[in-house]
Amino acid sequence: MEGRSISMLGTGLIADFYTMTLHGQRGRDRVGVVYSRSSERGEAFAQRWDIPRSTTSMEEAINDPSTDVVVVALPNFLHEEVITMIADAGKAVLCTKPLARSGEEAKRILDKVEAAGIFAGYLEDLCYTPKTLKAIDAVKGGSIGDVTWVRSRETHPGPHSAWFWDKEKAGGGAIVDLGCHCIEIIRNFVGKGNRPLEVMAWADTLVHPIEAEDNAVALIRFESGALGQFEVSWSFRGGMDLRDEVAGTEGTIWMNHFLRTGYEMYTSGGGDGYVAEKLESTEGWLFPVGDEVSELGYVDMFTDMFNAMENDTPPMETFYDGYVVNAIMDAAYRSAESRQWEPVDVDWRGGETPRIAKDIARHDGHAIVKEEMLPDGRRKLMLSDKDTGAVFDLVTDG
Amino acid sequence: MEGRSISMLGTGLIADFYTMTLHGQRGRDRVGVVYSRSSERGEAFAQRWDIPRSTTSMEEAINDPSTDVVVVALPNFLHEEVITMIADAGKAVLCTKPLARSGEEAKRILDKVEAAGIFAGYLEDLCYTPKTLKAIDAVKGGSIGDVTWVRSRETHPGPHSAWFWDKEKAGGGAIVDLGCHCIEIIRNFVGKGNRPLEVMAWADTLVHPIEAEDNAVALIRFESGALGQFEVSWSFRGGMDLRDEVAGTEGTIWMNHFLRTGYEMYTSGGGDGYVAEKLESTEGWLFPVGDEVSELGYVDMFTDMFNAMENDTPPMETFYDGYVVNAIMDAAYRSAESRQWEPVDVDWRGGETPRIAKDIARHDGHAIVKEEMLPDGRRKLMLSDKDTGAVFDLVTDG
Amino acid sequence: MEGRSISMLGTGLIADFYTMTLHGQRGRDRVGVVYSRSSERGEAFAQRWDIPRSTTSMEEAINDPSTDVVVVALPNFLHEEVITMIADAGKAVLCTKPLARSGEEAKRILDKVEAAGIFAGYLEDLCYTPKTLKAIDAVKGGSIGDVTWVRSRETHPGPHSAWFWDKEKAGGGAIVDLGCHCIEIIRNFVGKGNRPLEVMAWADTLVHPIEAEDNAVALIRFESGALGQFEVSWSFRGGMDLRDEVAGTEGTIWMNHFLRTGYEMYTSGGGDGYVAEKLESTEGWLFPVGDEVSELGYVDMFTDMFNAMENDTPPMETFYDGYVVNAIMDAAYRSAESRQWEPVDVDWRGGETPRIAKDIARHDGHAIVKEEMLPDGRRKLMLSDKDTGAVFDLVTDG
Amino acid sequence: MEGRSISMLGTGLIADFYTMTLHGQRGRDRVGVVYSRSSERGEAFAQRWDIPRSTTSMEEAINDPSTDVVVVALPNFLHEEVITMIADAGKAVLCTKPLARSGEEAKRILDKVEAAGIFAGYLEDLCYTPKTLKAIDAVKGGSIGDVTWVRSRETHPGPHSAWFWDKEKAGGGAIVDLGCHCIEIIRNFVGKGNRPLEVMAWADTLVHPIEAEDNAVALIRFESGALGQFEVSWSFRGGMDLRDEVAGTEGTIWMNHFLRTGYEMYTSGGGDGYVAEKLESTEGWLFPVGDEVSELGYVDMFTDMFNAMENDTPPMETFYDGYVVNAIMDAAYRSAESRQWEPVDVDWRGGETPRIAKDIARHDGHAIVKEEMLPDGRRKLMLSDKDTGAVFDLVTDG
Repeated sequence: MEGRSISMLGTGLIADFYTMTLHGQRGRDRVGVVYSRSSERGEAFAQRWDIPRSTTSMEEAINDPSTDVVVVALPNFLHEEVITMIADAGKAVLCTKPLARSGEEAKRILDKVEAAGIFAGYLEDLCYTPKTLKAIDAVKGGSIGDVTWVRSRETHPGPHSAWFWDKEKAGGGAIVDLGCHCIEIIRNFVGKGNRPLEVMAWADTLVHPIEAEDNAVALIRFESGALGQFEVSWSFRGGMDLRDEVAGTEGTIWMNHFLRTGYEMYTSGGGDGYVAEKLESTEGWLFPVGDEVSELGYVDMFTDMFNAMENDTPPMETFYDGYVVNAIMDAAYRSAESRQWEPVDVDWRGGETPRIAKDIARHDGHAIVKEEMLPDGRRKLMLSDKDTGAVFDLVTDG
Repeated sequence: MEGRSISMLGTGLIADFYTMTLHGQRGRDRVGVVYSRSSERGEAFAQRWDIPRSTTSMEEAINDPSTDVVVVALPNFLHEEVITMIADAGKAVLCTKPLARSGEEAKRILDKVEAAGIFAGYLEDLCYTPKTLKAIDAVKGGSIGDVTWVRSRETHPGPHSAWFWDKEKAGGGAIVDLGCHCIEIIRNFVGKGNRPLEVMAWADTLVHPIEAEDNAVALIRFESGALGQFEVSWSFRGGMDLRDEVAGTEGTIWMNHFLRTGYEMYTSGGGDGYVAEKLESTEGWLFPVGDEVSELGYVDMFTDMFNAMENDTPPMETFYDGYVVNAIMDAAYRSAESRQWEPVDVDWRGGETPRIAKDIARHDGHAIVKEEMLPDGRRKLMLSDKDTGAVFDLVTDG
Repeated sequence: MEGRSISMLGTGLIADFYTMTLHGQRGRDRVGVVYSRSSERGEAFAQRWDIPRSTTSMEEAINDPSTDVVVVALPNFLHEEVITMIADAGKAVLCTKPLARSGEEAKRILDKVEAAGIFAGYLEDLCYTPKTLKAIDAVKGGSIGDVTWVRSRETHPGPHSAWFWDKEKAGGGAIVDLGCHCIEIIRNFVGKGNRPLEVMAWADTLVHPIEAEDNAVALIRFESGALGQFEVSWSFRGGMDLRDEVAGTEGTIWMNHFLRTGYEMYTSGGGDGYVAEKLESTEGWLFPVGDEVSELGYVDMFTDMFNAMENDTPPMETFYDGYVVNAIMDAAYRSAESRQWEPVDVDWRGGETPRIAKDIARHDGHAIVKEEMLPDGRRKLMLSDKDTGAVFDLVTDG
Repeated sequence: MEGRSISMLGTGLIADFYTMTLHGQRGRDRVGVVYSRSSERGEAFAQRWDIPRSTTSMEEAINDPSTDVVVVALPNFLHEEVITMIADAGKAVLCTKPLARSGEEAKRILDKVEAAGIFAGYLEDLCYTPKTLKAIDAVKGGSIGDVTWVRSRETHPGPHSAWFWDKEKAGGGAIVDLGCHCIEIIRNFVGKGNRPLEVMAWADTLVHPIEAEDNAVALIRFESGALGQFEVSWSFRGGMDLRDEVAGTEGTIWMNHFLRTGYEMYTSGGGDGYVAEKLESTEGWLFPVGDEVSELGYVDMFTDMFNAMENDTPPMETFYDGYVVNAIMDAAYRSAESRQWEPVDVDWRGGETPRIAKDIARHDGHAIVKEEMLPDGRRKLMLSDKDTGAVFDLVTDG
C-alpha cells in the first residue's frame, strides 16, 4: 500500500487536472515538488494543491531524492530535452500527450528511455475514460464482432495557451493537439497489433488567424481493412465535443464523453462558479459532466500507471504507443500536402492482423447476401450467383 | 496520508460494491476483516477482495484491534443490534441505507451512537453521485433559484436476496428499499433545513406474489412550499432507472444516472461478461454506465466519510439524516393506509425555511403575471388587477 | 375525395395552429370563414391564412351555408354557449380542450350534442402525436404487457393570454389548462374502458401572482389497479416540457415530444426567426422540434376527425372523453381541498376492467418471486413459502 | 384546391412509401394508375392502396389521359429509358434517387427533360425532413454563421432487393444507394451555389459477398473552403442510423432522424407488428420514429413538388441537383481508385461563393487568436504577432 511521490513539471491547465486527480478522493500518491519557470506560478500552484515544495530549477525538481516519478506537463517543444534529463536521472517518467512534435523526435525519446531502462508511461487520458475502458473490454470480448470502422471526434473552440497555437512550438495545430487522442482511441478499438498502413487527411485554417490548421479530418487504413476516422477542430461552437463511435460486424458502440452524459441544466443565469471545461456560456441549457477527472480518464490512467510500475508490467499506454501516434500524425500532415494516401512510416512491433471476416452463409451453393423474413412468414433471400456474381432474389418457404 | 482499516460486516451485493470502491483505484483505505454468518461466503469474499482475515464472529470483526471503522452492510433487521455492539466498542460506524425499519428504531440507533460519542456516517450513496454533488452545488449557488419541485425515481425489476422481499425483515417493500434513496436526494435539493411537513402516498402490490408493496408513489410537502415526489418500483422493465429532476424558479436540472449516460451499445449477442447492475439482457441495445462505483456515488461517499472522520466534522450524510428518512417513510406508509396526507413525526433539528419567493414585477400597480415580446416588437403584459385580481392583457409600446 | 369547409371560431394561438395544420401540406379541407369579436383580428387572421371571409357575428360564422364543420377555438367559458348554438344549427362541431370548466358543464354540453345528433369531436391533440399513436398501438398489441403506471408531464412558463390565468374564465389554473391533456393521454394508455375510480391531488400557487394553481401533481387510480400520474406547471424553466412514460408488466415506453426529439442547435445568437413554441431563448443550446403541428398531433387529429365524419364512426376522441376528463379534474380539485382521495363522479359507459395480472411461476408449490442466473450457471430462486408467505432464497442446479 | 392524378411506376418499398404519403392524412392528390412488370404485384399494390387501375404496360401507365404526373420508383438502370418516354409524352416527372448511375447518364436525362420542357422533380426525401428544412432555414438565417463542415451519415444493414446489390444495375454499391442522400443534404447546408471542387473517398467491401462497396467514407471540398463528409454502410448493426451534423463559425446543429428521436421502448418480446424500417429486432430496447413518412421527409417533399408545379416554380430539388449528385459520386468512385483527390466534373450553373469568413478582432494591431476571461476578472488574450505570426499570451485588466 505504498504511495508514490511525484515531481510535477509544469503548472498549466493539464498540471491542474493531473494534480486534482492525484490529490482527489482517498489516493495514496502525492505531488511532492512542483516546477515552474515562474516562481510566482509555482508557488501559487503549490499552495492551491497543498504541495510541500516548488522550484524554478528543473534539475532540482527531477532529482529531488524523495521523488519516485516525474510527470511531464510541459509544452510539446520541451518534451525531448526534459525526458532526456529524467532518463539520465533514472527516474520513472510519465509524459503528457502528444509524446513529441514528430515521429522522428518521438523515436529519439523512445530510444532514450529504453536505453535508460526506466519506467515510461504515456499519459493518454482519453483512452482511459471509464466508458472507453469498458467498451474496449466489450470489443475484446467479441460483443461487436470484428471492428470495421472507428470514428473519434474531438473539437472545441480552441486551447487556452499561446504555445498551442504556435505551429513551431506545438509541432502543428489541431491535429497535434487533438488528433493524438483520437488516433490512440482508434488504435485501442481496432487492436494495437493492427498495423496502421496509410493515412489520408484534409486540413485547413478556416477561422483563426494562425498558420497551423484549425480544422482537420483524417482517414487511417489498418491492416485488417478497418478504417479509422478522426475529426478535430478548434472552431467548434457549443462546448467541448468528445464522441467516439465503433462499428463492428456484430454490433455498434456510441460514446459521448462530454456534452450529453445525463446531466442537463437550464439556468436563467443566476448563480456562479465553474461548471465544466470549455463551456461557452453560463446560462441557458448547459451539459456538465459529473466528475470531470473521472469521466475524462485521469483517475483510471494514473491507477494503471502506478499499478504497472508496482507490478513491473507495461502500462496500457506506453511511449511506443506515443511514437506510433506521432508517426500516424506525420503521415496525416504529409497527406494534407500531397493530397493522396501516405504510408505510415513506423518501426512496427505489433505483428500481423488478418482481414475482417464474417462467415458467408450459402443456399444451393450461392452466397447469401441478405436474408429477410416477409410478413407472410416466407424467407426472402438475396443471393450472389456462384458463377456470375449477379445478385438475385429468391423467396422460399423454408 | 494515513489510511483507514475497515471491518466489513456482510458479504452481499452491497458489501461487494463497498469493497470494490475501497480497494479500487489508488485508495489508501483497506478492508482488514470481513464478517459473514457463513464461513464459506466469508472466505470467498476475503479471497475475492484480497482481505487478510474473515470471521463468523461479529464480536471479533467489530473488536479487531486493527479496525478503525466498521461498515454495516447487513439486512435492515440486524442494524439496531449490530450498531449497538459497535457503539459499545467505541468504533466509528458507517451504516448502509436505510438506517432502520422505522423512525422509532432509527431514533433508538441515533440516540445510542450519540450517547457513545462515536463517528457515525449514513451510507446514502445516491446523494453522492458526481452529478448529484455538482447539481446540489449549483442549486446552493443559486443557479436555478428557489426549488419548487423535485422528482426522484428509482425503479428496477426487484432486488437480489430474499430478505428484501420479506416485509418483516426489511421493514416494508419498494418504499424502504428504494424510496429511502429518493427521499434523501429530495432533501438535499430542497435543503436539509427545509422541514418535511406531511406525506401523501400510494402503494400497491401489482405484480409480484409478495405482501409488501412492489410499486409506490409519494408526495412530500416541505415548509418552503416545495414538493418532493418519489416513484419506486420493483416491476420496471428495461434495466435500472435512476433519474432525478429538479425545478426551480430560475432553472431546471435533469439527471440520468443509469440508462442514458452517454454509452450505448448494440450487440447481436456475441461476447460475454458483466455489463452493469440489473441489466435485463445481454443483446440488442444496451446502456451500461462507465465506472459504476463512481457513477453511483460510492467513491465520493467514502471520501466524504473518511475525510469527515479525519477533520472531525460531520459527513454530508449523518445518522440524523437516516432517521429523518425513516420518519418520512413511516408517514408514507401511514398515508397509504389512511388515504390522506399524514404529518411527518420527527424530532426536528433543522430550523425554519421561508416560503418560495419570486419578486413580483408591477405595471401601474398591477402585478405582472407574464410578459411577452410580440413579433412587431411591442410588449404584451398579462396583468392581475390590483383591486379585483382579474387578469387582463395589455399591449404596450415600451 | 371531398374536402370540408370549416368555420373557425377564434383567432388566438390555438386557432393559428389549427389553421396552419388544415392549410398545410396538400390538404383538401379549408377554412372558409373565421369569427373574431374584433374585426381587426379577424381580418388579419383571414389574410394570414388566405381565408375568404371573416365576421364578427358568431351566428353568421356558424350558419354560413358553405360550412360543414365548426371549430371552437375559444376560451373555456364560452364553450357551452357556442356549442349550443352549433347544435341548434345542426352542424358538426370540433371543440378545443378542455371541453368545459367542470364535469357538470361538460355533461350539459354532451347531452346537448347527443340530443341534436350532430358529429362532435374533442380536439385533444396530444393524444394524436405520431409517437403516442404508435405507442398506443404497441400497448394494445401487447408489447409491454398490462399497464401498471403512466406518467404524463406537461409544463411550461405559462400561457399567452390573460383569460387562461383567470380562475373564473378558465375554470381553474394549470390543471385545467395542461392536466386535461395528461389525463386523456393516461386514459389512452391504461385503456379507455378502465374506469378512473379516484384521484389524489396536490395543487399550489408557488410563483405567479394569481389565484389559480400554477403547479399541481395528481394521482389517478384506475379499476385495473394501474396508476396515472400527472404533473403540470406554469413555472417550468427551459421551454415546454412534454414527456410521457408508460410502465407495463412486460415493457416500458418513454416519449419526449418537445425538448429532446433529435434536433439540437447551438447558436451564439446571430440569425433570427421563430424556432418553436414557448422557447425561452434564442441563443445557446436550443431544442426545436421538426414539424411542430405534426409532432404535436394536430395533423393526425384532424385526419381522424374528418375521416370519422365521412365514415360515420366516432373519432378517437369524443365529447364523452372530454366529459370524463372534466370529471377527473373535478375530483382533483376536490382532493386538493379535502387533502384525501376523492372519487371520480362520472356517468360511466366504459364497462369493467380486470385487475393487472402476471402469471406466477411456481417451484415445489412456492411462488417464484424472482429468478436469477448466477455467474456459475446455477439458478437462484427467491421463493414465497406457500404456507407462511416468508420469502427465502434457493440455489438450484436445474 | 385541385389535386393531382399520379401514375406510379414500380411497386417496391419506395413505391409503398410514396403512396402511403400521397394517400395518407387528408391529401388531395391520388395515385390513379400503378405499373408493375408483374400483374400479380401490380394488382396487390393497387388493392393495398385503393388505386383504380394497374397495368403491366409502361406506355399505358405513362400515357393514361387522367395522369398529370408520373412518379419513377424503379431501379436505377431503368431511369433513363423511362424518363425519356415520359418526356416524350410531355408529362411531369418525379424521379426517385439517385437520378442515374453516372454523371454522364444523369446529364443525358437532364438534357432530355429540359428539351421537352416538362416539370421534373428529384425525389430526394432526406433533404425534406422537417428537421432538415428547419435547420436549412436556420443556417440561411445566419444562426450558425458560415458553414465550415457538414457530416451526413446513412447506414443500415443493407437494402431489401437484389438489384441494389448488383453493381451493374445500381451503378455502384453503398455510395450510390446512400451517399446520394448525404451529398444533397451536405449541399443544402453549405449552399447549393457553393461549387463542389473535388472529392477524396475510401470504399471497401468488408462484410458482404458482393462486388460493390459495402462501406465508404468520402470528403468533399467546396469552393468556400467548407468540407462535406459522408459515411455510408450496408453493414451497420442496430437499425438504420441517419444523422447529420453541421458546424459553423457561430454555431452547431445535430440532427438524428431515426434511432434517437424521443421515442424509446423496452419490450420483453410480446406483441407484434411493424415498428419501423430496418429495425433489427422486436425485443429489448427499440427506438421507433413517430410518423415515418413525415420524419423521413416524404410529406414535405411531395408538398413542395406539387406546389412548385402549380406555382410554375422549380422545386427545392431539381434534376439538375440530381445530376450534380451523380457527378460528385463519380468523383468519389474515381478517387477510391486513384487514391487521391479527384476533381468534380460538372457543368456548373451555381455561381461563385466567397471563402468562409470570420472577422478578426485586433489588439494593438495583433490579431486576437482567442480571448478568455480569467477567474479574477482579467482578460487573457492569445495574440498573433503582427510581424512574426508567433502567438503569445497577454493578460490585461480591461
